[in-house]
Amino acid sequence: MSALTPELSQRMDAYWRAANYLSVGQIYLFDNPLLKRPLAPTDIKHMLLGHWGTTPGQNFIYVHLNRIIKKYDLDMIYVSGPGHGGPAVVANTYLEGTYSEIYPNISQDEAGLQKLFLQFSFPGGIPSHASPETPGSIHEGGELGYSLSHSFGAVFDNPGLIVACVVGDGEAETGPLATAWHSNKFLDPVTDGAVLPILHLNGYKISNPTILARISREELEQLLRGYGWTPIFVEGDEPAPMHEAMATALDTAIDQIRQIQIDARKNGDTARPRWPMIVLKSPKGWTGPKVVDGLPVEGTFRAHQVPLHPNTIPEHLSLLEDWLRSYRAEELFDEQGRLKPELAGLAPEGHRRMGSNPHANGGMLMRDLRIPDFRDYAAAVATPGVIGIGDTHVLGPFLRDIAKLNQETRNFRVFGPDETLSNGLGALFEATHRQWDAETMLNDEFLARSGRVLDSMLSEHQCEGWLEGYLLTGRHGLFNCYEAFIHIIDSMFNQHAKWLKVTARLPWRRKIASLNYLLASHVWRQDHNGFTHQDPGFVDVVMNKKATVVRIYFPPDANCLLSVVDHCLRSRHYVNVIVAGKHPAPQWLSMDEAVKHCTKGIGIWQWASNDQEAEPDVVMACCGDVPTLETLAAVSIMREHLPHLKIRVVNVVDLMRLQPQSEHPHGLSDTDFDDLFTTNKPVVFAFHAYPWSIHRLTYRRTNHENIHVRGYKEEGTITTPFDMTVLNDLDRFHLVMDVIDRVPHAGEKGVYLKQQLKDKLIEHKRYIDLNGRDMPEVREWRWNSVT
Amino acid sequence: MSALTPELSQRMDAYWRAANYLSVGQIYLFDNPLLKRPLAPTDIKHMLLGHWGTTPGQNFIYVHLNRIIKKYDLDMIYVSGPGHGGPAVVANTYLEGTYSEIYPNISQDEAGLQKLFLQFSFPGGIPSHASPETPGSIHEGGELGYSLSHSFGAVFDNPGLIVACVVGDGEAETGPLATAWHSNKFLDPVTDGAVLPILHLNGYKISNPTILARISREELEQLLRGYGWTPIFVEGDEPAPMHEAMATALDTAIDQIRQIQIDARKNGDTARPRWPMIVLKSPKGWTGPKVVDGLPVEGTFRAHQVPLHPNTIPEHLSLLEDWLRSYRAEELFDEQGRLKPELAGLAPEGHRRMGSNPHANGGMLMRDLRIPDFRDYAAAVATPGVIGIGDTHVLGPFLRDIAKLNQETRNFRVFGPDETLSNGLGALFEATHRQWDAETMLNDEFLARSGRVLDSMLSEHQCEGWLEGYLLTGRHGLFNCYEAFIHIIDSMFNQHAKWLKVTARLPWRRKIASLNYLLASHVWRQDHNGFTHQDPGFVDVVMNKKATVVRIYFPPDANCLLSVVDHCLRSRHYVNVIVAGKHPAPQWLSMDEAVKHCTKGIGIWQWASNDQEAEPDVVMACCGDVPTLETLAAVSIMREHLPHLKIRVVNVVDLMRLQPQSEHPHGLSDTDFDDLFTTNKPVVFAFHAYPWSIHRLTYRRTNHENIHVRGYKEEGTITTPFDMTVLNDLDRFHLVMDVIDRVPHAGEKGVYLKQQLKDKLIEHKRYIDLNGRDMPEVREWRWNSVT
Repeated sequence: MSALTPELSQRMDAYWRAANYLSVGQIYLFDNPLLKRPLAPTDIKHMLLGHWGTTPGQNFIYVHLNRIIKKYDLDMIYVSGPGHGGPAVVANTYLEGTYSEIYPNISQDEAGLQKLFLQFSFPGGIPSHASPETPGSIHEGGELGYSLSHSFGAVFDNPGLIVACVVGDGEAETGPLATAWHSNKFLDPVTDGAVLPILHLNGYKISNPTILARISREELEQLLRGYGWTPIFVEGDEPAPMHEAMATALDTAIDQIRQIQIDARKNGDTARPRWPMIVLKSPKGWTGPKVVDGLPVEGTFRAHQVPLHPNTIPEHLSLLEDWLRSYRAEELFDEQGRLKPELAGLAPEGHRRMGSNPHANGGMLMRDLRIPDFRDYAAAVATPGVIGIGDTHVLGPFLRDIAKLNQETRNFRVFGPDETLSNGLGALFEATHRQWDAETMLNDEFLARSGRVLDSMLSEHQCEGWLEGYLLTGRHGLFNCYEAFIHIIDSMFNQHAKWLKVTARLPWRRKIASLNYLLASHVWRQDHNGFTHQDPGFVDVVMNKKATVVRIYFPPDANCLLSVVDHCLRSRHYVNVIVAGKHPAPQWLSMDEAVKHCTKGIGIWQWASNDQEAEPDVVMACCGDVPTLETLAAVSIMREHLPHLKIRVVNVVDLMRLQPQSEHPHGLSDTDFDDLFTTNKPVVFAFHAYPWSIHRLTYRRTNHENIHVRGYKEEGTITTPFDMTVLNDLDRFHLVMDVIDRVPHAGEKGVYLKQQLKDKLIEHKRYIDLNGRDMPEVREWRWNSVT
Repeated sequence: MSALTPELSQRMDAYWRAANYLSVGQIYLFDNPLLKRPLAPTDIKHMLLGHWGTTPGQNFIYVHLNRIIKKYDLDMIYVSGPGHGGPAVVANTYLEGTYSEIYPNISQDEAGLQKLFLQFSFPGGIPSHASPETPGSIHEGGELGYSLSHSFGAVFDNPGLIVACVVGDGEAETGPLATAWHSNKFLDPVTDGAVLPILHLNGYKISNPTILARISREELEQLLRGYGWTPIFVEGDEPAPMHEAMATALDTAIDQIRQIQIDARKNGDTARPRWPMIVLKSPKGWTGPKVVDGLPVEGTFRAHQVPLHPNTIPEHLSLLEDWLRSYRAEELFDEQGRLKPELAGLAPEGHRRMGSNPHANGGMLMRDLRIPDFRDYAAAVATPGVIGIGDTHVLGPFLRDIAKLNQETRNFRVFGPDETLSNGLGALFEATHRQWDAETMLNDEFLARSGRVLDSMLSEHQCEGWLEGYLLTGRHGLFNCYEAFIHIIDSMFNQHAKWLKVTARLPWRRKIASLNYLLASHVWRQDHNGFTHQDPGFVDVVMNKKATVVRIYFPPDANCLLSVVDHCLRSRHYVNVIVAGKHPAPQWLSMDEAVKHCTKGIGIWQWASNDQEAEPDVVMACCGDVPTLETLAAVSIMREHLPHLKIRVVNVVDLMRLQPQSEHPHGLSDTDFDDLFTTNKPVVFAFHAYPWSIHRLTYRRTNHENIHVRGYKEEGTITTPFDMTVLNDLDRFHLVMDVIDRVPHAGEKGVYLKQQLKDKLIEHKRYIDLNGRDMPEVREWRWNSVT
């Protein structure tokens, strides 16, 4: 029995031709969109940009997805993994009507067609990817590798949703994509939806073949089955049999998905499903020019970009006209340029159209989180300096209760690469589990088929990709990670920040929840991991992105951390970076003080300062938990030994407060900045990350030339926390010496103190220096005991 | 027939016990290294750090590798992929004698044993990974995911070498590792060596199970076969049968490797081999405590770090003593603490010992490249401003001839993620090929089984990992990449820079060739890729690393690019970042001028300046090809319209020249800086990357507050190259307006000119603004035609 009647097959082929026609039109045509007259050189854009190669295959997939959406009434969105699939997604959302609804100027008539064609890859127009401007897209795909992760993120907690994810065979060679296939071990068939990967094996990248197209069918099938999938192969280049094969494959896949869901949801089957996927092997540049200038094009790498160049090679003009006319637009569009009704009827309706599905404009579906009062989780701070249990350990119960309160709405998740416990968030497991669908064994902890935590895969790429997909479809979450290794996803962050920047300017795109990073296990406390685990530079990558979307916080203690996380979870359309400690460390502020301090984001700590009566002699600024500790220890030393010095302590929680108001919405006015940092007094600034970041933020400030910054300067190994600060000149002794060097007022007492501190540092080095003679002293070494 | 005689099996088991004993000793013992007296609390280190979990398995592997090295006289090195395998590699290199040769204080006697134990994860001691301090290591592995890529890099062009690469099953979940299995499609069995992956399936990460241990054996085998490998499984926990099984597996693997090499090298077999690999399934924390405090430890995630805590739980002391004594050290070491001769004899000798193999200290084997005179490749520059063919296109023939000249020594390779042609280096294919061992088809270009270019895999991670492995084993290379997507390997760069920093301080480590990045396809010329492909921030990541190892170059034209690349290929132990254009662009300097300019790294372009007779009114600084073009265009405008202005043009090739001398070895002295930039005149600085980087580098300079920087500020889309500069205020008109705003001397003429330029920009925006009414003007738009 055929999946398609001959009539339906022909209609679908016509629809496909329409999409292909619109795609070629986007790449080439300046005018004459319906070819009502012979193609003339003036009809061609001056600069030809775009990528034909992937387009016809994606058009083919789209029309077939439309069929099954209608047949099964599917709630489905489309993720375009291959690079530069823009023409296909734009063509199809135009054909289904969503494009013109969002952009009325691109109307469904000849004038609209002309604009549709012109705007593509044209100054002032639209990009060549499935960019934010494209209806139905949650995945621009300019950088390759994240389509599958985004798709899985989208279907978590969306049991009715299917994401059809086209994976390019070039993209499939990237590391992130290669491991993303394993996402199927983290999907709960009861409470999550399904991802239908369509591996598009068109055989070529920019100018190379692809690996997966050049291994045997047997190997490819083993690989995909080894990843846990059930592949269905569709292969060929003749349209008619390909339509039938694709329709059959999709029917089979949907049947299998539904059966898996019924088995799990109704029949109590708990075995991990082998979800179906499709391997579509079709020629690159399918239906395009077969031979150009004597060289084969269709089915080769030469079909990757723009196969014909009528502007520079006049003979190509007629080839282009032949190509365009091969789609027989006159059969597809009426005289006014409107898609004929019998074809238009092939598309789904309303929100079932993939360009109009609200999941792909996630802000439309987003509901606020239920968040308990974070003040209820406060650490008791009877007096500044009491030792806490580790700041993230205080945060844990707050996150646990958020997970609990939103258990029913299922719209909050915590992500991490096997580090959630290590990062001090174990309290989560009092209320929820790690979601895991592979085998479990007797001694496993906290694994379950369903749970709010996804941290059982050692892949920062997956955590980031899943979370992005989850947020883009209207939910909330947090990614906890070692500080150094968040650099692994620098480039993914870049792409997400760019997405946020562009979507914020599109009126029809609703805002989504912020992407929240909790970077625990930071540079200063890698006591047993050492140099490889020390890199606080992610904030520098983040600061390069648009000020409208990035926020960076360094809460100095647990109560501030609670306040900051509460704020970040309520915020929208930002990337929030929060750096926090997990080890027992001094606590400074009561909850009331913390709330006030975090609300301002920066402020004088009066209780630690003694300049109330006068101008300070020096400002001791600090940002980050360890720098704050060292700064306050330095202040203690100075207040004991140099009591005549007037010291002001300024703590920075919200790093962006340092920037000028003109550069960042959180930036302090110059007046406020000068009030805090003075206009002419020395500022000794202890900073968590690389010191020059502070200069980058403050170089326009009045007092900038007096700001002296200590921070991580790429020195470290496995050693004590205090020695880490010594190695980087951030320790209390260096900070005091920095003051003495800068404040003439320190006087002779200062000179004397400086010598004492130098001696202390030499003594410290002797303890640390491990050579034979010093062994007995090393034996007496006490961890973190220097005061 | 058994692989091992009972006697040999027992001796190997004893050797394994010795390694395990040394590993536990490293984690725990402060004193009493031979347990000559009962274990006392004072024998235990105060702070217990380290990771037991992976160690016994790696010790097991190492003793078995020793056997086959001796049996087959193998040239083999060891790559320790799992995290924190330090104790194992240190123990084994100590047992084989290499450790004491390099570190005579860690002698092969009781005193040496004590120091060996004490130094591990101890202040002033050594890290817990296979760090640079570890003999035989080319792979620290603090960050996970790169062991296989490094291993393949090491065996390229080393036909006699086998790298035994232990892959952790946690590490195997990372993206980079997941795609690295495909490296076998790029190995030439004739001219390259072999990688023997040993997937160590010990089942757990920090606190989670691993995916590959929780899928069925059938699925795992399919996966590995799908990746193109022939897996040999070794599974169990009883030492005796495991020794036999492992020995048999290794004999089989070596036989298969040799047969593959004979078939390819002698019998002319050109089929892609299915190389053997081993899957070793053994308990995590094997031979360690079985149950602690009532909870199972051996074979669970609880064995990951330190399983016993005698410092805080006194009952653990006797458990630790039992554990240590279970290895029966008295049978393994003599009274003086020296390994007994019948065991010592199991290790290979001389450079066959894996800790002493020169490939793992690549600088020992490194030979200088043969490099032709780069001046012979000069672009003719009759007059400044002539349009070139694209700077990287000029570089191509130079690289081609380097590939040719070093064809026989086979020690130079170019790496890229399918971008070598796109980046303008196609000339390489006149002399060599893309190395590729998968299927080829009729229309492929430049593919061959052997070639100097590895660019057929779309994975920046692979390019970076392969190149690192290639350099670390004493060869030379260059990685060409799109500028934006080099961020994908930020974290790998971080680790490599850290490795270079530490090894530079180790006298026994020889310097290696620099890691050279050529970032073409940069932010300003993403005409058809748009916003997703625009990110010049990699240099900010690079600048965070130690000044002793990082260098950054922005050659403004082709002759400068040639000079810079020549310099970088001759340099040692650096990371060099070179940013260059690939599109036809103006050329400024003759080869002689370029050499002089690049030697200084920064300088006044007298021919473009008119301040020869006097102090300048303004300094126009530029860095990068597009900013240089816009700056010179701005200067042209000013010299025409404001001829009374004295303008000095300063071009920066070597970005690090801007830093103070105290911060970077390339830094200009303050006097030299002031000579160039003046102490009080306005500086309008057009920079390739994010503008604040210039402030970060110059904030200590006298004239810093007059430096006004334009650069990329995260604005862009698909548009014309000129419009890209307009969007970011870096265009010639903005630069002139910046001068007029800052130089009172510009006078009324300046005010008038500014108004004219504003009008021009408005006119430009109108061309670019794509709405219906403006269509006719857009039609007339000429690409890059604004002057």
